Amino acid sequence: MVGDEIMRSLAMKTPSKIVLVVLDGLGGLRIEGKTELEAAHTPHLDELASRSICGVADPVSPGITPGSGPAHLGMLGYEPLRYEIGRGVLEALGIGMELGKSDVVARGNFATMDQKGIIVDRRAGRIPTEKNKELCALLQEEIKEIEDARVEIRSGKEHRFVLRFIGQGLDGRLEDTDPQKEGNKPRQPTPLAPEAEKTARIVKDFLKRANQVLQDHHPANTVLLRGISRIPAIPSMSDLFKLTPACIATYPMYKGLARLVGMEILETGEGIADEFKTLKENYKRFDYFFLHVKKTDSYGEDGNFEKKVEVIEEVDRHIPVLVELAPDVIAVTGDHSTPALLKGHSWHPNPFILCSRYERIDDVKEFAEAACAKGGLGRFLAVHEMPLMLAAALKLTKFGA
Amino acid sequence: MVGDEIMRSLAMKTPSKIVLVVLDGLGGLRIEGKTELEAAHTPHLDELASRSICGVADPVSPGITPGSGPAHLGMLGYEPLRYEIGRGVLEALGIGMELGKSDVVARGNFATMDQKGIIVDRRAGRIPTEKNKELCALLQEEIKEIEDARVEIRSGKEHRFVLRFIGQGLDGRLEDTDPQKEGNKPRQPTPLAPEAEKTARIVKDFLKRANQVLQDHHPANTVLLRGISRIPAIPSMSDLFKLTPACIATYPMYKGLARLVGMEILETGEGIADEFKTLKENYKRFDYFFLHVKKTDSYGEDGNFEKKVEVIEEVDRHIPVLVELAPDVIAVTGDHSTPALLKGHSWHPNPFILCSRYERIDDVKEFAEAACAKGGLGRFLAVHEMPLMLAAALKLTKFGA
Repeated sequence: MVGDEIMRSLAMKTPSKIVLVVLDGLGGLRIEGKTELEAAHTPHLDELASRSICGVADPVSPGITPGSGPAHLGMLGYEPLRYEIGRGVLEALGIGMELGKSDVVARGNFATMDQKGIIVDRRAGRIPTEKNKELCALLQEEIKEIEDARVEIRSGKEHRFVLRFIGQGLDGRLEDTDPQKEGNKPRQPTPLAPEAEKTARIVKDFLKRANQVLQDHHPANTVLLRGISRIPAIPSMSDLFKLTPACIATYPMYKGLARLVGMEILETGEGIADEFKTLKENYKRFDYFFLHVKKTDSYGEDGNFEKKVEVIEEVDRHIPVLVELAPDVIAVTGDHSTPALLKGHSWHPNPFILCSRYERIDDVKEFAEAACAKGGLGRFLAVHEMPLMLAAALKLTKFGA
Repeated sequence: MVGDEIMRSLAMKTPSKIVLVVLDGLGGLRIEGKTELEAAHTPHLDELASRSICGVADPVSPGITPGSGPAHLGMLGYEPLRYEIGRGVLEALGIGMELGKSDVVARGNFATMDQKGIIVDRRAGRIPTEKNKELCALLQEEIKEIEDARVEIRSGKEHRFVLRFIGQGLDGRLEDTDPQKEGNKPRQPTPLAPEAEKTARIVKDFLKRANQVLQDHHPANTVLLRGISRIPAIPSMSDLFKLTPACIATYPMYKGLARLVGMEILETGEGIADEFKTLKENYKRFDYFFLHVKKTDSYGEDGNFEKKVEVIEEVDRHIPVLVELAPDVIAVTGDHSTPALLKGHSWHPNPFILCSRYERIDDVKEFAEAACAKGGLGRFLAVHEMPLMLAAALKLTKFGA
């Protein structure tokens, strides 16, 4: 990757348009001879592939399984090993919190602790969202400030909430308190850098007070924290790539991530059809669209091969809406693989197709992992997708004399 | 790339010989179903490809369109993001200037300015070379020194000249004064680093005095400067790769670049036949030859598909001269793509073929973009070409114990 400064100096504002369609967790592994993508009937995506240069992209580096943060950063042209986004930050942005640069946020779970202090349910039996709201209000009422930091608690769905500390001298480099497996005690929020000692003290005090407040609210009688973090100093897509970018997504985390890199978040409905409709309705106002489909990943995580296939097929049915808009560059890919076989994110590269009149169209005729691996782009790092898309839209000037 | 220190430690002097043939701007895009290379009848290059391992090489990084400087540096084994060569330096070396390390040089254009100071012709109607010489002599006569810097002005073809400042404390980090488009005023030579303030002052003074000298010489009544720069500290090919390298090229810039990395520049004629004849005549004296063909790029820039095809075919006819010499390693590639379709440099990778008895010959039978993309080298960065060539010539020892 050429680095941000060079990208910034090469990118040009032009009228050409780019649409990137991301099927979250797209890549799969074969069950009974076919991956999810190979099993899916995708005539429109296949037709698009036959007019594209194709390849497979490693999200971060070969063999590395990424979380959603690095997987998206890479795909959006940000070096995922340089910019680190904590889960707390992602969740906070996802519920629409506007974070200050010195705020520290964490993803919280209500959980169940037994009398010995052992976590017996990391999700407190997935308490109803209404109960969650009630408990968050209670916590907020009882804990407004710790030392000189203001405390903000915002409820999410079921057992989830976001915890935010607003103040000076805060630093998110702390260990998670979530022990990841039931049967263990919560971990301490140990500082991973000397600068985070104050924050560790504040978080410890918060946990102590939260346990007092919650003690009679079994099963939600404690909280676990993950991804304690601050927002990274990350340049916007308009700064770095001279784009006017829009995000069409249904799931909070992806909207939050898009907001972090300066995309405008478009209102859309819950379904895939809604997302493509939103694309069409807003097509004139932007020159870059990030259209994110979540459910491929969700079903992959569930190990539900058939449902993942169905989501892919549903996306395929809407591809004509996109093709009819005739953007200068269309790219379709995933952020990372989530093979139903593995029931989780994996390290496998994703198929990537790039449709532009200025690319060398290869002879790949199918949008699938093995087919695209034989394409003209070969195997490459996802961080190169943005320069490739910008180049194919003639948005990059020459580097060097 | 392994880095200069490691390369230096691995490279060995051996009698084996390497010939790299570079067709400038080789890579293309399809028009009516074929790229320039696919349209060209190239039986000898195809035969060579069938005895080679093949691939396609990104000059700098996927999606990045390089200028001639970074494109050549990469191909010659120098990390193009590390070593930056200004256009002024390239032009100066190209006309045979031997630059000192602290000299600052710029590419100059005679141009036409109207009474309001607006540039109305960036090339002064491409004045005849004779007129250029006359004006350069006049400028040189009138401007010999500014502050403690000696001024040297050397005419080039048509509207082009090279301006050199010889002195201490000079720094080339200044903005171009060429506004790039007619209808604008020239830019100021703004310093891009504090160390360049003295040079900015000197350049401003030069421009003021040049405008006075040229005021009655319409259409060449002003000058524009580009690529103000110093030579980078770059190790020679003999130092880094233990080679005794020779350059066979017809166009000044490429000779200049070759001189910068320590190649001996061989006298040759204007034609492609001359270049291959020069190779044959000097074959015994060197162990590395860089044979550069310019006109593929020139015709690509002109959008002249047919003429680019003809140049490729002409090179093909001389390949037997090279094959008959039987070097240990033959490589043929381009520095960057210049598709006639785009009439300019582009980001697309170049086909690269590597013929050596110690390589894994693949089943590619055609020297062309799509064919080579399916070869054993896959898609890779051009900076790896030098280690691959050295390795195939058994000129690299083992790395690590």
